[in-house]
Amino acid sequence: MTHEDYERRMERAGRAAADAGLAGLIVTPGPDLVWLCGYRPPADTERLTALVIEPGRRSRLLVPVLEYPDAECSPGAPVMEVAGWTDGSEPYAEVAKWVDPQGRYGVSDATWALHLLGLQRSLPGTAYTALSESLPMLRAVKDAHEVARLAAAGAAADATYEEILRVRFAGRRESDVAADLARLLIEHGHSQVDFTVVGSGPNGANPHHEAGERVIEDGDMVVLDFGGLKDGYGSDTSRTVHVGRPGAEERKVHDIVREAQQAAFEAVRPGVACQDVDRVARKIIKAAGYGEYFIHRTGHGIGVTTHEPPYLVEGEHLPLVPGMCFSIEPGIYLPGRFGVRIEDIVTCTESGGRRLNETAREMAVVR
Amino acid sequence: MTHEDYERRMERAGRAAADAGLAGLIVTPGPDLVWLCGYRPPADTERLTALVIEPGRRSRLLVPVLEYPDAECSPGAPVMEVAGWTDGSEPYAEVAKWVDPQGRYGVSDATWALHLLGLQRSLPGTAYTALSESLPMLRAVKDAHEVARLAAAGAAADATYEEILRVRFAGRRESDVAADLARLLIEHGHSQVDFTVVGSGPNGANPHHEAGERVIEDGDMVVLDFGGLKDGYGSDTSRTVHVGRPGAEERKVHDIVREAQQAAFEAVRPGVACQDVDRVARKIIKAAGYGEYFIHRTGHGIGVTTHEPPYLVEGEHLPLVPGMCFSIEPGIYLPGRFGVRIEDIVTCTESGGRRLNETAREMAVVR
Repeated sequence: MTHEDYERRMERAGRAAADAGLAGLIVTPGPDLVWLCGYRPPADTERLTALVIEPGRRSRLLVPVLEYPDAECSPGAPVMEVAGWTDGSEPYAEVAKWVDPQGRYGVSDATWALHLLGLQRSLPGTAYTALSESLPMLRAVKDAHEVARLAAAGAAADATYEEILRVRFAGRRESDVAADLARLLIEHGHSQVDFTVVGSGPNGANPHHEAGERVIEDGDMVVLDFGGLKDGYGSDTSRTVHVGRPGAEERKVHDIVREAQQAAFEAVRPGVACQDVDRVARKIIKAAGYGEYFIHRTGHGIGVTTHEPPYLVEGEHLPLVPGMCFSIEPGIYLPGRFGVRIEDIVTCTESGGRRLNETAREMAVVR
Repeated sequence: MTHEDYERRMERAGRAAADAGLAGLIVTPGPDLVWLCGYRPPADTERLTALVIEPGRRSRLLVPVLEYPDAECSPGAPVMEVAGWTDGSEPYAEVAKWVDPQGRYGVSDATWALHLLGLQRSLPGTAYTALSESLPMLRAVKDAHEVARLAAAGAAADATYEEILRVRFAGRRESDVAADLARLLIEHGHSQVDFTVVGSGPNGANPHHEAGERVIEDGDMVVLDFGGLKDGYGSDTSRTVHVGRPGAEERKVHDIVREAQQAAFEAVRPGVACQDVDRVARKIIKAAGYGEYFIHRTGHGIGVTTHEPPYLVEGEHLPLVPGMCFSIEPGIYLPGRFGVRIEDIVTCTESGGRRLNETAREMAVVR
């Protein structure tokens, strides 16, 4: 990525803002900032850092003066104006000098309330909207370079899964298997591990259970859900394995989830609404009698973060566009008993979906 | 901490809100949530988690339904009402059912803009203020138990510093020494390392430089600034060391910073305004001719985070109160040459300041 690449992204963002009826964008630390200008401050804090993008104008980055040296060396600095503000002064008043006092601005989703309230106070005539709501497409359509990065992260996740099948599960704690997953992701080139869910037996019925002290037993179903960042792009894969031979209901529930995941994958093509992919998966699980146990949306976008638009959820009418990349991850969670989730990262192409995770979706038997 | 302890904190927060003219507090994931009810969700995401506290009412926690099992097991759960919302429904409408539609609420500083905008949209008659501005005292005054935790974290930082003086600096990269600092903090009981600044030579003149690939040379000044969490409470210490014998200006600048740090420490007593501690340090550095090179505030509060109110900064009129804990960390940064910073965590007692870091502030000479 050169500064010209960042300049193009910022110009595109400015045009998209104008098309959406916005005066511009105000972006604070996080994935939008990294994606737009390559600047990753040491932390997101009570000290305001803000990138202001307006159509047809040079972008401006305001940073705490003590971070100015870093900001000045960031990849996008040659194509931005960078300014510092000093402790004890009012950073919102600085932003106020730059923006349209009656404008409507998109702000990054994770901008601190402290900062948004500061802007609203300093600029009482302005209005704000969250970027994922006003410009959900800003980062949602990946270029070929980005899809290649996501595919490489997916390949590393596949390699991690193939190796985890060979470790011992029975008699070890969930946290031990989680540590193996983290080690394998790093060995396969991840720079950052975001989550390593190992949900054994009843813990698998809690979709956001991470890994705990429970000792895995022979006869357990185990939900594995792991991912992080490789070369700045995310991986996120789930498979459900069984310790020893599975029983009839375990096989049945796994088959239903696998069928739902496959059907949702096959529903992917340009123009289909996000919610329709969710509906395809949900319909199959409901028809099988497990509808009330599928307690989350079918998927979420992925890119420089592991959770971003588009969201495959009821109510999301956004149509799929070639280049979008997202998870497809239906699940069934039987409280007190076990859970099953199967998840791949999929990209929408002109001719339909293409999986960026390739390992088998059959229920693997582990030791 | 028992659920009764959390209940007392939530009741106190409700009363403080009423005293500040607020209808209540809306708290999302982060240090306020952990401090108030002991709940630490797996991540802070686009899915709303919100604790609503109102004076004289039982507190209510809204979580994504897939995190409900975790929330229900959190330490404060027995004294709260916990409810889940489902993907595809509107969580802000759920919060709207609970709150005063014309009320003014304090929100946690780091609440996502996405969520604050959602609340403002669903509750157009409500108003919001950031917790650090409306209730800066909420977590600022620590009880004896909390001061003991901070002192233990400080002792671990002291032990880390004493051991880092024995490692080799010359010929190694900053990132190598930073890794040593992280390892030592963990060895001394930290569960989390938040920062390990190693700013050698000209990098020391950038106060927020982390550690890079620069190879440390004989004759370098090196700013060390390291900290994290031990048993849930923070450490944050800076010392500036010299590789080999320091020159005259290096000794002089270090002496000025040390004098400023000592004078600011001696200024600590109940009733003194935060800004006056800053002024004491700044006056000394200014009188010595280096005023323009002291480019940040003198300090910040510390507790379950490493940056929180009170801030020792010009314009902060809040008076010091016994139990407040904060850093005192003046510095001088000479662009292109070197920097010096000396930082201790200090608690205000009835009789004045008490340092929670005890290691020598003289400039240490390392190899």
